[in-house]
Amino acid sequence: LNPVYAGMPVTIFEHMSGLARETGAINLGQGFPDGAPPQALAEAVARATRERSNQYPPMAGVPELRDAVASFYARTQGLALTREQVIVTSGATEAIAAAVFGIVNPGDEVLLFAPAYDAYAPLVRRAGGVPVFVPLRPPYWRYVRDEIAAVITPHTRAMIVNDPLNPTGSVASAADLSMLAGLCIEHDLIAFCDEVWEAVRFDGVRHRSLLDLPGMADRAVKIGSAGKIFGVTGWKVGWMCAAPELAAVLARAHQFLTFTTPPMLQYAVAEALNHPAIIAAQHADWSASRARLIERLRGEGFAVLENAATWFACIELTVSGFELTDREFSERAVREAGVASIPLSALWEGGACPDGIVRLCHCKPVAMLDEAVERLARWR
Amino acid sequence: LNPVYAGMPVTIFEHMSGLARETGAINLGQGFPDGAPPQALAEAVARATRERSNQYPPMAGVPELRDAVASFYARTQGLALTREQVIVTSGATEAIAAAVFGIVNPGDEVLLFAPAYDAYAPLVRRAGGVPVFVPLRPPYWRYVRDEIAAVITPHTRAMIVNDPLNPTGSVASAADLSMLAGLCIEHDLIAFCDEVWEAVRFDGVRHRSLLDLPGMADRAVKIGSAGKIFGVTGWKVGWMCAAPELAAVLARAHQFLTFTTPPMLQYAVAEALNHPAIIAAQHADWSASRARLIERLRGEGFAVLENAATWFACIELTVSGFELTDREFSERAVREAGVASIPLSALWEGGACPDGIVRLCHCKPVAMLDEAVERLARWR
Ligand SMILES: CSCCC(=O)C(=O)O
Ligand SMILES: CSCCC(=O)C(=O)O
Repeated sequence: LNPVYAGMPVTIFEHMSGLARETGAINLGQGFPDGAPPQALAEAVARATRERSNQYPPMAGVPELRDAVASFYARTQGLALTREQVIVTSGATEAIAAAVFGIVNPGDEVLLFAPAYDAYAPLVRRAGGVPVFVPLRPPYWRYVRDEIAAVITPHTRAMIVNDPLNPTGSVASAADLSMLAGLCIEHDLIAFCDEVWEAVRFDGVRHRSLLDLPGMADRAVKIGSAGKIFGVTGWKVGWMCAAPELAAVLARAHQFLTFTTPPMLQYAVAEALNHPAIIAAQHADWSASRARLIERLRGEGFAVLENAATWFACIELTVSGFELTDREFSERAVREAGVASIPLSALWEGGACPDGIVRLCHCKPVAMLDEAVERLARWR
Repeated sequence: LNPVYAGMPVTIFEHMSGLARETGAINLGQGFPDGAPPQALAEAVARATRERSNQYPPMAGVPELRDAVASFYARTQGLALTREQVIVTSGATEAIAAAVFGIVNPGDEVLLFAPAYDAYAPLVRRAGGVPVFVPLRPPYWRYVRDEIAAVITPHTRAMIVNDPLNPTGSVASAADLSMLAGLCIEHDLIAFCDEVWEAVRFDGVRHRSLLDLPGMADRAVKIGSAGKIFGVTGWKVGWMCAAPELAAVLARAHQFLTFTTPPMLQYAVAEALNHPAIIAAQHADWSASRARLIERLRGEGFAVLENAATWFACIELTVSGFELTDREFSERAVREAGVASIPLSALWEGGACPDGIVRLCHCKPVAMLDEAVERLARWR
């Protein structure tokens, strides 16, 4: 058995969702909206299944979706991408896998920033690469140039930058992004830009793709996700965007991972991307539920970290009155309080994790959020 | 860029389908049924999208589908699998990728049999393994024990057995299967059993899973595909079945490739697997179109190889009156005759490919098959 996977536990997300299902707890762990998806999307799926092909679409995605992704980025981020630069994948996790397998060679070092989505390190290792972790600094999760530069070696080949950042909900500053781009250019690194949260921002905070910075067009792989944009995490429609020659190689890696992605879902996402009103309506919902969770948490004396994006808010346990590590909190809260959460340390490798931070998901009905906060307050 | 993918062409399937789309040729190349899928399946997708969750299902698949796969195999192949032994994947290609990445280590040798589905070798290479090819012998595509035993070394770790076999449509004999199982046991090898064509058999020919042979339960990974069983190749719902401890490791590899598979498609496949009438109706259609293509080809003097499974029939070019290599035939026939096909040599590595064999897909409307044969006969 391959040592990367042998003995590995299930992901923290699967573990917590499993416990929530078993115990009937409110699941603010794994990130997904509760409730029906936008009706237009469900109808588009039914229509495409009935009226369009149910057979292999083109390996890199249906032209309608590749074009819709390009237009979406032109409209929302001012990017000029062609159809050839967009490769559709079966979710963003597959995009990350294809990008890593397509680019990383045995012995290559890949910079990861902690906290990091839990797929990155195993994928780098399975590609024969070596993950090198650099911690981000709370409470603003800044990228510290000297700490990054200190671990760059002649073997460093790439970095994976998740911006906006899950689990913290933070957005990299313009200065940090320029600094990262500068390091990529100076050391000839590829940037895997996991920007799946690009459309889930609040309080007017802006997002700029690392791909859009000067000098980055030929060395960035930008990864996006319809699951996050539309709140349909089960659909597993994602994409990766890169310069044409790079995109062609990534497509080869993709062709032997899933080959292609269900056409009815591709057509539905293409339609939806072309309707800004769908995205706006959902954004308004998420904005309201986010405000509600944070307000109720603060009202009960929980210390909520600043955040500006994603479906998540983090609380600091000690300041909130809990004498527990983050893992103890998560394992006990799901059973004793009936609320599932994600401990930050489950997404931390390399160096000490900041003490006692747990992540709560806010894209849920208000009554559910209120009940969860009450349960936690009662339990404290 | 990783050398496995850099400079690699698109798959022959994508290449030929692309040419067919461009030229308007009849596409008997890439294997997929033409026409609407069973109506019950399309309705089940619409219903599940409307009424069930659109969010992350459990990573290993919804329980309904894992159970339905186990029941399907109990009913059709007499296998006794538990839910824990079935891991749902985003198509069989993803299952093969997860199985290879989950098991193969750098330096491991993996036996492949030519002709071989084109994903196998790149995946083994990308996992750090070494594909070792053994040719099968036409016209019956027998596995020759001495040739296999001759290339087994202390580094040999696994074999990939595709039975029924694409592109030939042949089914391994009981004697060949026992011989393969014997080698696996003697040399402590894992068998990746790509059995996606298990339900697409004709003329009463039987299929027995390699997993079902004595001594194989703990060393076989059986891979199946709803796309093939129901003729919905775009749905990308597959699975892998293995002993519980092995299945757990394969699930870890899967969790970082696609994490999970769209729930509406999983529910629809689960429903359909529990309705033998759907499978029977489709089988009757395919049986009829297969008979038609073979009869028309033979009627026009084409030499059709014996076959008993899959959506494919192979013709021998020289005996059929073509003085062309298989690649020349396929490249020219799509442009000059208006018929796309797959040359056997595109799926052949290691040793000389038998001369001039091309594959034609028969799961198409009768009028389309008739027209294709007429075009080829006129063009000859
Ligand atoms: C693929 S499960 C993880 C879902 C997610 O993005 C999260 O909860 O952070
Ligand atoms: C994934 S494209 C190949 C489809 C297929 O199985 C075939 O045509 O052989």
